[in-house]
Amino acid sequence: MYSHTQLLNFTKQLFIKIGCPENNAQIIADVLVEAELRGIPSHGMIRILDYIGLYEKKRINVNPNVKTVHETPSTAVVDGDNSFGMITAKRSMEIAIEKAEKVGTGWVSSRNSNHYGIAGYYAMMALKHDMIGISMTNANPLVAPTWSTSRLLGTNPIAVAIPANKQAPFVADFATTPIARGKLAVKAKLGENVQHGFVQDKKGIPSTNPDILKDGGAILPLGGDYEHGSHKGYCMGSIVDIFSSVLSGANFGPFVPPQVPYLPLLDKKTGEGLGHFFGAMRIDAFQPKTEFKEKIDEWIKTFRNADKIKGQPEVLIPGDPERKLKEIKLKKGIKLIPAVKNDIIAIGKKYGVNFD
Amino acid sequence: MYSHTQLLNFTKQLFIKIGCPENNAQIIADVLVEAELRGIPSHGMIRILDYIGLYEKKRINVNPNVKTVHETPSTAVVDGDNSFGMITAKRSMEIAIEKAEKVGTGWVSSRNSNHYGIAGYYAMMALKHDMIGISMTNANPLVAPTWSTSRLLGTNPIAVAIPANKQAPFVADFATTPIARGKLAVKAKLGENVQHGFVQDKKGIPSTNPDILKDGGAILPLGGDYEHGSHKGYCMGSIVDIFSSVLSGANFGPFVPPQVPYLPLLDKKTGEGLGHFFGAMRIDAFQPKTEFKEKIDEWIKTFRNADKIKGQPEVLIPGDPERKLKEIKLKKGIKLIPAVKNDIIAIGKKYGVNFD
Repeated sequence: MYSHTQLLNFTKQLFIKIGCPENNAQIIADVLVEAELRGIPSHGMIRILDYIGLYEKKRINVNPNVKTVHETPSTAVVDGDNSFGMITAKRSMEIAIEKAEKVGTGWVSSRNSNHYGIAGYYAMMALKHDMIGISMTNANPLVAPTWSTSRLLGTNPIAVAIPANKQAPFVADFATTPIARGKLAVKAKLGENVQHGFVQDKKGIPSTNPDILKDGGAILPLGGDYEHGSHKGYCMGSIVDIFSSVLSGANFGPFVPPQVPYLPLLDKKTGEGLGHFFGAMRIDAFQPKTEFKEKIDEWIKTFRNADKIKGQPEVLIPGDPERKLKEIKLKKGIKLIPAVKNDIIAIGKKYGVNFD
Repeated sequence: MYSHTQLLNFTKQLFIKIGCPENNAQIIADVLVEAELRGIPSHGMIRILDYIGLYEKKRINVNPNVKTVHETPSTAVVDGDNSFGMITAKRSMEIAIEKAEKVGTGWVSSRNSNHYGIAGYYAMMALKHDMIGISMTNANPLVAPTWSTSRLLGTNPIAVAIPANKQAPFVADFATTPIARGKLAVKAKLGENVQHGFVQDKKGIPSTNPDILKDGGAILPLGGDYEHGSHKGYCMGSIVDIFSSVLSGANFGPFVPPQVPYLPLLDKKTGEGLGHFFGAMRIDAFQPKTEFKEKIDEWIKTFRNADKIKGQPEVLIPGDPERKLKEIKLKKGIKLIPAVKNDIIAIGKKYGVNFD
């Protein structure tokens, strides 16, 4: 078990060692450890090896000049200067919030960025400003559109955070696919099959093999098959992709640069780097804050008190599971699986940062 | 077969007869006939009987004063004065577009409205202004959250329209459930069962009975069950509900007033009427128009040329099927099923408007 401050300190020191300014190293550490705290380890410490690997292959700019390249009162396009995604993303969300302060809402599309960790981190930045926060990103292509064998979309998540009064905020953060890549990897390591409805093989035939992506298979869009609405998941993934890439000038769909060092960069580009999209909406641009928050409390209570199905868990509000895990992990610490722990110790040694 | 102008004229005359100003009757007719043309008859002429029924029960204001009750440079709250939904929705989207002209984007949350027909109609209004259009609405509660038997959400659709250059625009318009209520009704009339993954019975047990809603059953969120991501569909439906209702001051989730005359109004209110949410984003608030549209063309071509799965249809771009049906129906006319035709003839007779 590690305390979150231990993980924060280690991660920050490591990213300083590779040349990140202290502020930026802090942001990267904060996003990664927040993922661990919220019970999303697939976006936590396990990623450090890939991030450092991208740096070692000179595919990341550790000292970027993130800047606005175009704007209107309610919009901006941010160029991330090939930073780690968190740096571009946090600055972009700050700009969205600044614009919302002035004209009610702010909308930022960001290019020339990289993998940004958990989408929810940036959406939640809006909460303390009494704003609704929105965050989405495109990602490495692993998902096939309905009726296709081509991997054209990422798992393209959407996060929306909505402030409440006495209740904890509503925080939705979900991939537009039925399963995340990380969960497939876990199943593969356990030697277990997955249920139907998650993946298909390279010919487009439904598969239960969690390792099928290595053989040209693809993740299905949310919905699974056409009859169950996979075209709706495909629509959502596409909207995330277009808002993140075509609006910003980033690479779209199949041209998103690989976010792992062992895959080579693609020959074809349709823009710069990976893209994100952020939104901030001031509550009082619509309703008096107090009224809005009290009504959100009522919404939350109504849904939390819904009748449950016998033998199944309680009805949850988006954000409930992650918040509860965070409360526990802040107190009891964060457990790392041995493989991740060993990788971190090794990479720490390489750069002269002690872990443990 | 009826020409779309026949249906337009009849519908317009009928709504004038019940007291709608000519302009408003024109809008209602236009939205209903557009649904027929785009192959979504569940939102077309079949609805006339319910709309007129709501008027007859004095639950609709045929001569409304739709007005902005709060605004910032990029946002507005519109009160629909209990109009037919199309009147509130069209005006709200116009306001979103006006605001986008000035500050880059416009966002309108609307209350005190009613069923607005197809979501895509309003999203597509943005296209001719070189804007991305967004439209969503809450709806009568028929959908249960994951692990619940309570019907708390509507099929809450999301529509997003994105302009292209030589390609037809990208027009996504989808319910946040695997199946729409209309399709269940068709299956029930045919005496057929539905597949698993669409509905559950009143105890929350998976069901294949398309008539199960009459016995306290519920539609499932997109994803179907928890393992296949129904909590993601539940998140999306919830976001649509909150943006449409809590931001506007409309009734949320289970308190949305019934949009059919045979169901009584609820005792409890959490706001005024039904709610919608609209967005308009000026393309050139992010990218030069020409570059953006050319890149969308490239996006569309990339996805349309994706490898197809043997034995399955071609890969589609959102909006393809509806556009193709519209082209055909504009030329060959619109077919009405006998029951709808008879209903329309009868209601026409009642109000002195001839059909046929």
